Formats: sequence, C-alpha cells, structure tokens
Amino acid sequence: MIECLVDGELSEQVSAADRAFHYGDGVYETIAVFDGQPRFWQGHMDRLAAGCERLDLPATPQAVLLREVQTVSAGQGRCMVKIIISRGPAGIGFRPAVTDTSTRVVASFSWPPVDGQPELSGVRTRICDLRLGIQPELAGLNHLNRLEQVRARAEWNDPTIHEGILLDREDHVISAIRSNIFLVFNDRILTPRLDRCGIRGVMRAAILAAFRERCEQRRITIDMLPEAEEIFLCNALHGVYPVNAIDHWHYEPGPVSREVQEWLAEQ
Amino acid sequence: MIECLVDGELSEQVSAADRAFHYGDGVYETIAVFDGQPRFWQGHMDRLAAGCERLDLPATPQAVLLREVQTVSAGQGRCMVKIIISRGPAGIGFRPAVTDTSTRVVASFSWPPVDGQPELSGVRTRICDLRLGIQPELAGLNHLNRLEQVRARAEWNDPTIHEGILLDREDHVISAIRSNIFLVFNDRILTPRLDRCGIRGVMRAAILAAFRERCEQRRITIDMLPEAEEIFLCNALHGVYPVNAIDHWHYEPGPVSREVQEWLAEQ
Repeated sequence: MIECLVDGELSEQVSAADRAFHYGDGVYETIAVFDGQPRFWQGHMDRLAAGCERLDLPATPQAVLLREVQTVSAGQGRCMVKIIISRGPAGIGFRPAVTDTSTRVVASFSWPPVDGQPELSGVRTRICDLRLGIQPELAGLNHLNRLEQVRARAEWNDPTIHEGILLDREDHVISAIRSNIFLVFNDRILTPRLDRCGIRGVMRAAILAAFRERCEQRRITIDMLPEAEEIFLCNALHGVYPVNAIDHWHYEPGPVSREVQEWLAEQ
Repeated sequence: MIECLVDGELSEQVSAADRAFHYGDGVYETIAVFDGQPRFWQGHMDRLAAGCERLDLPATPQAVLLREVQTVSAGQGRCMVKIIISRGPAGIGFRPAVTDTSTRVVASFSWPPVDGQPELSGVRTRICDLRLGIQPELAGLNHLNRLEQVRARAEWNDPTIHEGILLDREDHVISAIRSNIFLVFNDRILTPRLDRCGIRGVMRAAILAAFRERCEQRRITIDMLPEAEEIFLCNALHGVYPVNAIDHWHYEPGPVSREVQEWLAEQ
C-alpha cells in the first residue's frame, strides 16, 4: 500500500472484529487513477452503490469517496486505488448485531508491472480447472468473497500465461479471473450473461454501452471459444487485451479488438 | 470481543492489507470454552490443519494456539473463542505476492444468549430461499467466504425461528446456516455428504465417530425431510438441538436425539 485511509483517517489498520475480515461481508472497487483522476469514476460509483444496496450496506456519498481517492493518489502519476466498503465491526454471528454501520477503506497501490506490449501482441491464457459455483444471489457483485479467484489463480506458475478463463459447472464461459471476456463472431460482440455467477466489470459495462448495437449478453459455451474470430479481455486497470491463445487454441488480435482499444484511448 | 490476540500480541486491529479483509483468504474455528478448557480441541485442530493444507496456508503449532485460547478466555466461565488464520498482508492480487505468511487472530466473545431450553423443547426452523452454490474446491472447509450464510440469515426476522435449513441448487439438503443436520430413519442416523458444498462441523465429525455404526453420510433430498422420524442440529457451541418444526412440518424430539445429547453430556 502507498497510502491508506480508514473511515477518512490515515491508518493501515482495521478492527479485528470487522465483518469483512470474518465473513467477506462487503464490496469493493479497483480503480485506475492517472494524475489524480480516477478513470470510469461514474461506472465504479454506480456499481458500488448497486452492490451496497444488494447487500443492505449503507451508501457512502460519492463526494467523500472522490476526495479520499484523490488524497491517497496525490503525487502518483499512475496508481491503482482500491475502495472497500465492509459492514464493519457490526457483531459476530452471520446476522449483524448492528445495522447501518460500515467501514470504508480507500488505499492506493503502485501500478502492477506489465511485461511487453500485451495490448498489441495479445495475451496467452488457459482454461482453469476450477469451475465457478452458480449463485444468483451474489452473481455480478464485486463482493469480498474471492476464494474461487484465489484458488483458480493458484493453478499455474508459468509467467507467460496472463490469465485463466473461468467456466461454470455447466461448461458456460463466464469470465477470466480478473477480467471480463468478449468473443467476436461476424462483427457481433458477445459477452457472457452474469446472472448466475461472475463479476460485472466496470470496463465491461462501458464497452456494452459504447458498442450497444453490436453487443449481446448471452450464454456462451466452451465450444464457442475455438470458433471465435477474436477474443479479448477487459478490466478497469489494463483496458483491453486481445487473447492470442487459450491453451492450444490460437487467435490473432483482430480489427474489433483494435476498434474497442481505439474507443478506449479516446475516453 | 472480550480479548483479542493478533499474532500473539494484545491488539484489536489487523492490517488493512490483510488478505482475509480483501478476499476472505483464510479459515477459522469457533470453539466453546468452559473454564479455560476448549471443548473438542483436537477436532478443531484437525479441521484447522486440514483447512490450512487445502488453502496452502502455513500450519500454526497447536501449542501456540492452545496457549492463546487459554489467554483470551482466562477468567471467563463460559465463552466462545474464534481462531482465524488468514494469509495476512501477502500482497494485493488474487495470487499472493508472498507465500508462507499468515495472520493469526485468537479472540474471545461472550457466550451467545439462548432463549428457553431448546435442547429439550427443540427448535423451530425454516427452509432458506437461498440455495448454496456447488463448489467442490471449497466444500467442507470452514473458510472465510461466508456471504451465502450472511444472506441466508438475512431472510427472516422472526425471533422464534432458530435456524434456516440450506439446500443446494439441486434440492439436496446440506446443513443449517450455523449447524450441521442429522435425520433419523428407523434407528439409522443420516447426515448430508459435504463434498460439493457445506461445512464439515467439528460436532458433526464427533457424532459421526461416536455413532459410526448407525451413521451414514449420503445425499439427502428435500422430500426426505417430512419423512424423517427425528431431525437434530449440532454445532460446537450449542451441542445438539432437536428440530421441532421445519416450516409447516412438525417433529417431536425423540429417543435418538436424546441419546446423542446424553453421549455429548459425557464428553
């Protein structure tokens, strides 16, 4: 961590009774900040507000969060800022003893190192052995229960593999571990529906909005992967990375991936 | 919290970079302690060690944990002690930047209040709307991703309902929210297999061992609930509670529940 605010105060500690620590009872945002300006701010705020509402967490005013993001990123050219809203030390027991409490952590981290120029060359990926559990109650949410992602990322050590593709138990393609996924067929841009598992990324939502006439959310099965003309990944930090391989299937970074990258460069 | 040790030091705070806070990356035990003596200690230690091994967390010597449990429970007649082993502040990103680190929290809490004599009268329960996701990679583990339980417990406010019965998405009975479940048929004692979801409770394991000749772990479907002669719940804090109702199905606390309670009283 570069700098961390807990409920607005400079601190690197939270209560050992916090429900995020005990249960993962909260939501988070991971935001790219360039020269003090958070990218896709409104998208992050919309998702955070929706997540708090679904988990019955109190809303935090955007102005407070923006000020804190700017405080922890001050003097950093480019950094990553993580916002965590947890239910706080609201009582041990699955049911909170106190309602309407929360703990707010806003912390900056150095920008993760990137090898080469993956936005041009594309990235190598693999299909994870772990299958995501189907849980509509939590699907789409960027909540703090992330052991599936931790376990999936522990499956490989090869540093040339950038990401792992996640399927659900019925062999539907859902996402990558820290990115959403898009497949191009005949100039149509498809991305998995995330009503049963997966995380609705802020970059995914921005792409769906910008290319709404060519985009479609649908069920995507594993057998569609080798048939896709192009595949690309996206997240709020890295933007858009074409996929050049999924295990033994190979792809060329193509014109639609480039078009989405060009759109992103203009934002 | 009555008293809390973090890595052996009196503290009520953990790092805001702890992976339990960010991802729920860790495991825990909830232990009944009577006059400084933890009940079912070896069962808790066996489960904790198995959980750490499955999540690639370093093992903590039992002697250290026992000393800390006794420290935080000193002077309490009866209390609950929670042990949390998290991967600690080992780097942000699903893959830990540092391996073989952990944070150890040992904290005591006052004994939860109990209304009436549920061990005699039995308890009223309901079937939760939330269905547990199927995730063999994490099944059985007492890990820190507990939003399913938090959301299931948020389904009702009626204080006369003691517990919620959890099914998986295929209508198999798995457990209650904070207890395991046993069904009695013809003097056979059945409990759900927990290879796809659910938590392997320490009291469940002790009952399975003590009554091994009459117990069976198997798939239990929802239609078996109204047919059961007796149903009882168990956990490390409350021991064994007969179920007297699941929604509109009613049961009498019966001889097998009593027999298990008598066995427990002798431990």
